[in-house]
Amino acid sequence: MLVVLTGGTGGAKLIEGLAAEIDPSELTIICNTGDDAIFHGLYVSPDIDTITYTLAGLSDSEKGWGIRGDTFTALEQLRRLGNDTWFNLGDKDLATHITRTKLLNEGLKLSAVTEHLRRQLRVRSRILPMSDQRIETRVKTPEGELSFQEFFVKQRWAPEVISVRFPGAEQAQPAPGVLDAIGNAQAIIVCPSNPITSIGPILAVPGIRAALEQTGAPVVGVSPMIGATAISGPAHKLMVAAGFDASVVGVAKCYREFLDTLLIAGEDCASAARIEALGVAPVASDIRMATQADKLRLAGEVLALVKK
Amino acid sequence: MLVVLTGGTGGAKLIEGLAAEIDPSELTIICNTGDDAIFHGLYVSPDIDTITYTLAGLSDSEKGWGIRGDTFTALEQLRRLGNDTWFNLGDKDLATHITRTKLLNEGLKLSAVTEHLRRQLRVRSRILPMSDQRIETRVKTPEGELSFQEFFVKQRWAPEVISVRFPGAEQAQPAPGVLDAIGNAQAIIVCPSNPITSIGPILAVPGIRAALEQTGAPVVGVSPMIGATAISGPAHKLMVAAGFDASVVGVAKCYREFLDTLLIAGEDCASAARIEALGVAPVASDIRMATQADKLRLAGEVLALVKK
Repeated sequence: MLVVLTGGTGGAKLIEGLAAEIDPSELTIICNTGDDAIFHGLYVSPDIDTITYTLAGLSDSEKGWGIRGDTFTALEQLRRLGNDTWFNLGDKDLATHITRTKLLNEGLKLSAVTEHLRRQLRVRSRILPMSDQRIETRVKTPEGELSFQEFFVKQRWAPEVISVRFPGAEQAQPAPGVLDAIGNAQAIIVCPSNPITSIGPILAVPGIRAALEQTGAPVVGVSPMIGATAISGPAHKLMVAAGFDASVVGVAKCYREFLDTLLIAGEDCASAARIEALGVAPVASDIRMATQADKLRLAGEVLALVKK
Repeated sequence: MLVVLTGGTGGAKLIEGLAAEIDPSELTIICNTGDDAIFHGLYVSPDIDTITYTLAGLSDSEKGWGIRGDTFTALEQLRRLGNDTWFNLGDKDLATHITRTKLLNEGLKLSAVTEHLRRQLRVRSRILPMSDQRIETRVKTPEGELSFQEFFVKQRWAPEVISVRFPGAEQAQPAPGVLDAIGNAQAIIVCPSNPITSIGPILAVPGIRAALEQTGAPVVGVSPMIGATAISGPAHKLMVAAGFDASVVGVAKCYREFLDTLLIAGEDCASAARIEALGVAPVASDIRMATQADKLRLAGEVLALVKK
């Protein structure tokens, strides 16, 4: 059994490759929920949705979010009815949020709802939220504190970032199955996701970091950074705000207590010695996943490393 | 100021005519909410929606419900996600229910939500729910009690009807503005809606029937029945279950305490004397509204009667 820690976009690409290279039922995916937000009264869980849609073969890989070929009829009407519609929600995508909200209001936990949705979409991998409790990633900027979606989508990650916090994390528990999955994993893969706001919230849930530190299984990560910037999104900006170098060395520092191996881009080879000094083995490769073939190749390389 | 009591389909046709014949801002429409139901956790108010969409020029007059040209992408996905989707909800229509549910959950009353939605859709007539409290039309059948939508839509009004009740009505109050509107009306129009399950719930709200009985303004109704059957829907079936004749005489009996004039079809002229004996003045006309011209003509006739 393979355990994968992930956020949305970048993680989804690697997971797509992994699910093609091994039996998808061998994968347990632990998802960030710090980005979760309520839009129009509906509970949206962007990372869980991206991973679920990806494994269901529904994802829009061009856009990196939502369902391929989705329409935006309801959203246009929501705008006409006076709602603030800066967060894109397609019509099919809305069905997910409507169903999730209904089931949560009926008393189901997020983990049970996530399980229901992935089964309805014939996804064979297990998808677990990091926690059933609400943990919200909050981004402090000079103009005030923003939710992650306000920072990332509404403001297009333009504001200066002072700091990031995860209110709710200290009181939260890992969702059912999370610690068992890590404890029983044959290997653990940390996706090329934002170390601060995608993997960071997962690590902030009490017990998860300790479980990763204690596991005897190999822990292999893929860097989301090449040089001083993220392959996509604002990871570099958030790493600096959190006191880390915006580099593969910074990534290794974020994960050093539990990471065995870090896949980095060839152009970051000069940082290999500094990564090794942190107790993490660097492995250079082509970590960009522009094509389907890239996803399969990189997944294969990660699998080869964890099987060593 | 004209006050109109209405359900959905049949009432919407007459209201479309009325709003074309006079300044729509002169109309106050009191809507049945006994058909309201929760689907997928969303609060749906079918009669308010039909009237709002009609006055916004959005209604699908072919189908008699929903928004013209609406798509059903979200509903198809809701079905795929394991939801029971016997009640049709278009994508644009969903935006209404999402917005309503959000605002209700934020603590707004149904009357305030209805006002917000009609203003967003540039509807100039005032639309009032009969009550801000939940009153549910329940239909007793040999196989058990059904909500109105279960009876009407899911079972296509096939089951035998034993009786109808309106739990919640006794404890309810008319929505803000309802009694004032009736008290200050220059005339009151009872639409050709189901006397038992469209107008019946409105009359079941304490105070509304008394206000109609006390008004000095003319009260004019249009029969939903021709011969022994309703122009559309199950009015005849429900009238019999409620102990009334399935006929224009039955309609006159339902409203006799407050109705001055009842427009009936020419073929029901033989019932004129029995209607008069109830203290209601029958006026024969063509009450079918198949075309836009029919709606305007019948609205004009109703307006001429109330201005007498």
